[in-house]
Amino acid sequence: MARPTPLSGFPEWLPEGRLVEQHVLDVLRRTFELHGFAGIETRAVEPLDQLLRKGETSKEVYVLRRLQEDPDEAATRGHRETERGLGLHFDLTVPFARYVLENAGHLAFPFRRYQIQKVWRGERPQDGRFREFVQADIDVVGAGTLPYHYEVELPLVMAEALGALREIGVPPVRILVNNRKVAEGFYRGLGLTDVEAVLRNIDKLDKIGADAVAALLVAEAGATEEQARACLALAAISGSDESVVERVRELAGESNDLLDEGLAELGALIRAASVRAPGVVVADLKIARGLDYYTGSVYETVLVGHEQLGSICSGGRYDTLASDGANTYPGVGLSIGVSRLVSRLLSKGLVTTTRSVPSAVLVAVSNEDDRGRSDAVAAALRARGIPVEVAPSAAKFGKQIRHADRRGIPFVWFVGDDESGADQVKDIRSGEQVDAEASTWTPVEADLWPRVVPA
Amino acid sequence: MARPTPLSGFPEWLPEGRLVEQHVLDVLRRTFELHGFAGIETRAVEPLDQLLRKGETSKEVYVLRRLQEDPDEAATRGHRETERGLGLHFDLTVPFARYVLENAGHLAFPFRRYQIQKVWRGERPQDGRFREFVQADIDVVGAGTLPYHYEVELPLVMAEALGALREIGVPPVRILVNNRKVAEGFYRGLGLTDVEAVLRNIDKLDKIGADAVAALLVAEAGATEEQARACLALAAISGSDESVVERVRELAGESNDLLDEGLAELGALIRAASVRAPGVVVADLKIARGLDYYTGSVYETVLVGHEQLGSICSGGRYDTLASDGANTYPGVGLSIGVSRLVSRLLSKGLVTTTRSVPSAVLVAVSNEDDRGRSDAVAAALRARGIPVEVAPSAAKFGKQIRHADRRGIPFVWFVGDDESGADQVKDIRSGEQVDAEASTWTPVEADLWPRVVPA
Repeated sequence: MARPTPLSGFPEWLPEGRLVEQHVLDVLRRTFELHGFAGIETRAVEPLDQLLRKGETSKEVYVLRRLQEDPDEAATRGHRETERGLGLHFDLTVPFARYVLENAGHLAFPFRRYQIQKVWRGERPQDGRFREFVQADIDVVGAGTLPYHYEVELPLVMAEALGALREIGVPPVRILVNNRKVAEGFYRGLGLTDVEAVLRNIDKLDKIGADAVAALLVAEAGATEEQARACLALAAISGSDESVVERVRELAGESNDLLDEGLAELGALIRAASVRAPGVVVADLKIARGLDYYTGSVYETVLVGHEQLGSICSGGRYDTLASDGANTYPGVGLSIGVSRLVSRLLSKGLVTTTRSVPSAVLVAVSNEDDRGRSDAVAAALRARGIPVEVAPSAAKFGKQIRHADRRGIPFVWFVGDDESGADQVKDIRSGEQVDAEASTWTPVEADLWPRVVPA
Repeated sequence: MARPTPLSGFPEWLPEGRLVEQHVLDVLRRTFELHGFAGIETRAVEPLDQLLRKGETSKEVYVLRRLQEDPDEAATRGHRETERGLGLHFDLTVPFARYVLENAGHLAFPFRRYQIQKVWRGERPQDGRFREFVQADIDVVGAGTLPYHYEVELPLVMAEALGALREIGVPPVRILVNNRKVAEGFYRGLGLTDVEAVLRNIDKLDKIGADAVAALLVAEAGATEEQARACLALAAISGSDESVVERVRELAGESNDLLDEGLAELGALIRAASVRAPGVVVADLKIARGLDYYTGSVYETVLVGHEQLGSICSGGRYDTLASDGANTYPGVGLSIGVSRLVSRLLSKGLVTTTRSVPSAVLVAVSNEDDRGRSDAVAAALRARGIPVEVAPSAAKFGKQIRHADRRGIPFVWFVGDDESGADQVKDIRSGEQVDAEASTWTPVEADLWPRVVPA
C-alpha cells in the first residue's frame, strides 16, 4: 500500500488535536448535563425519504448501498424505509425529531436532550466546512406545546458551554438572535406575502451585499424598490439592549399582532440575556437562517475575531418538525459545529496541550527478565489513578528517558533492587531524581493528566 | 409523518440505555488512558479499494454515493480514492493501519492508541449482531518491530477494563487465547501445508461440530482422516495453566521451530496472566479467528454465562497490515464489541440506572414572573457542580413534584420569599423537606449524578 493521503473534507487529528477535541466535548457534555439534558445517540442512517423532506438539502445527502446485496433479502424486504434506501444523516435535528416520534411513549416531556455525533454532507469542502463533522446539539421538545421561556434558556446554556471553553483559549462568542415572528410580521405589515422568498434572500446579505439583495427581493419576492429598502433597513438593526425593539417599532410604523408577539419575545430574550450572560447575546435582525422550519427565535453564533469562519452554533424554535398527525412536538434547539470550532483552534494555534499522551510516568525496565517488576509498579500507580506505561524495551536508561521525552511523558520511574536500593522517580524536565514508593508517590495535579491550555 | 418504526440492525437506546452505554464507554476510556493509550478518531469512510483488500469482507461494506454529484467535480476529480468511491469502515483496525501510515512521521513508536467509534457492516441482523455498532479498540503498533510482551500486555488491559465493569453488573469474562505459530507449526509438523484452509475450517467448530469439520479438512485442506483428527485433537486442548504447553507437545510428537516459538509465547502469556489477572485468561487451541492477517497471538472473549452471544472482545497480533513498502508497522490489538455487550446488559436486565436524567434537583417556579429567581437558584447550584433543571411551568406545586417524580429527579427546590420565608428542598422519595441555601446545600454523593448499578 502506498503512503495514503488525507481525504479532503474528512478531517482527522493527530493525538494532540484529538485531546483538544475530546476536551471540548467533555466540557460541552458536562455543561449540558449540569443543565439536566439527557444524552442520546441516534443511528447514523435515516430513511432517504425522511432526509429528503426538505428539498434544499437533497444535494448534500450521502446515499448508502450494500456492495453485494443479498437477493433473498431484496426480494422479501417490505419496509417502506428499506425500499427507498438509506442515507447518512446531515444534521442531528431530523434524526432527533424521528426519535421523539418513535419513542414518545417512553419519554417525559418537555424532553431535554443533548446529542454529540458525526454528521455527513456531500458539500464542496472549504475552510471550516467539512463533509464529515461533529455536531453537539441541545434541544427541548414539548408534547403539544412548549413555553417561550425555553427560547431564552437554550442560547444561554450554549453561552455557558462556550464560555467554559474560554479558559483553554477559545475566543469569546457573540450569539446573534432574531425572531421569525418579527421578520414575518414586519414583511406582512409592508404588504409582502412571500415571506420565505424574503428570508431566503435576506440570508444572502453577508455574501452578496445590500444592493444585490434588494434586486433579488424585487425580482423574486415581489417587492417594490421601497419595500426592499425597508427589508434591508430592518436587517440593519442590531443591538444588545431593548432599544432594538423600539427601533423596529419605529421602522415598522403600523403594528400587527405577529410583530407585537415577536417583539415581546425578542425583548424578553435580550432582557434575560443581559442579566445571565452580559455582553454575549445580541439582537441582529438580519439573521434569517436557511431552514424553513423555524417559527420563532433563531440563533447564530460567531467567534469574536473569527467572524469570517461563519456560525459555530446555530438553531431556533420549530413547531412542526416532529408530528405524527395526531401529536405535534414543538421544540427549540441549537447545534455547535464542533469540528469547525476545533479545526480553527488547531489551525490558528489558539490552544495547545501539555503533552500528547495520557501517561504521566514511564516505568523503566532494567532487563527483560525483570519486566514483571516494572509491570507491578505500573499497576500500583494506576490503582491510585496515575496514568502509566512501561518502557518498550530494556534499552539503556538514557534511551528510555529519550523515549519518554519524545512522547512528552514528564516522569521516568526506576525500579530499585537489592543492589540499587529504593525505587526512584526522575522529573526529566528538571532532572530532579528522588526516592519514591509506588504506593504513595503522586505527581502534582498539573502533571497528572495532559491538559488543554491556551497556546 | 407516520409514527416511525425501528430499523433492524441499527440499535438505539432510550436515555436510560444510553446512560449505561456512556458509563461503559467512560470506564473503558479511563482504563485505556491509565495504561497510556492516546485516543484518536478516524473518519467513518475509507477508499473502497482499501476496504476491499480482504475479499471476505466485501459483502459487508456499505458504499457511499452523493445523491446529486456535481458534474464539474466528477469531471475534475483525479484522486485514486474518489475515483474508486468511498465506503463506511467495517472495523477500526483497517482505518488505524491507514492512519499510522499516513501520519507515521508525526507519531512516536511504539504508538499506543485507543479508538471508540461506530462501524458498519451490511450483515443480516441477529441477536448481538448489528449493522451499525460501537467498537472500542486498543492497539500498540511498532515501527519495524514490536516485542512479544505487548501480546501479553494488551489482553490484560482488556481484562482490567472489562473487570472494572463488574461493579455495574457485567458478568465476569473469560479471555480465550491461542497462537497462530502454534497452530501453523503443528499443522506443518503434521505435513499439512494449506494452513489457511485448516484455520478457516477449525473456526467453524462451534457452529457445525467436529465430524463436519473433519470432513471439510479432508475435502478442502488436503488432510487425511488421521491428520484431520490430529487437528481436532489440538483444537480440543484448553486450560489456564502451562500444562497446556506440555499437552500440545505430547500431541505433536516431533517439534519444529515455529511450534517451539509459538509454545514459548503462549506459555509466557499464560504465566503472566495467572499473576496479573488470575482465572481470566484461558489457552484454547480451537481459537482460530477468521481474519488471515494475524500472525501470533489471537484472542476471543466470552461473557461467562452468555457464551452463546459470541465473542465480545477479539483481536490478535498482526505483522503486515500496515506497510507502505519501505516500512512495516507490526501491531497487536483487541476490539470490544460495545453494542453487543450493552445490548445484552439491557435486554437481560443485568444493569439499571438510579434515574434516567442528569438532574438531581428540579427548581420549582411559583409564578412565571418569578422564573428569574428560580433560574438564579439553579445557576447557584450548578456553579457548585449540582445538575439542575427548572420546572417547565408555574403549575401547582403538586404537579411540579409529579413532573420531577416522572423524570426520576430526587429533589424539588422551593424558592422562598418574604411571605414563605427561607428556600426549602424536598426529597420527594421520603417527603422530607428542609430549609436550604443554594450556596451551601449539597445532595449526598449517591444522589448527585445518575448511577449505573447492577439490576
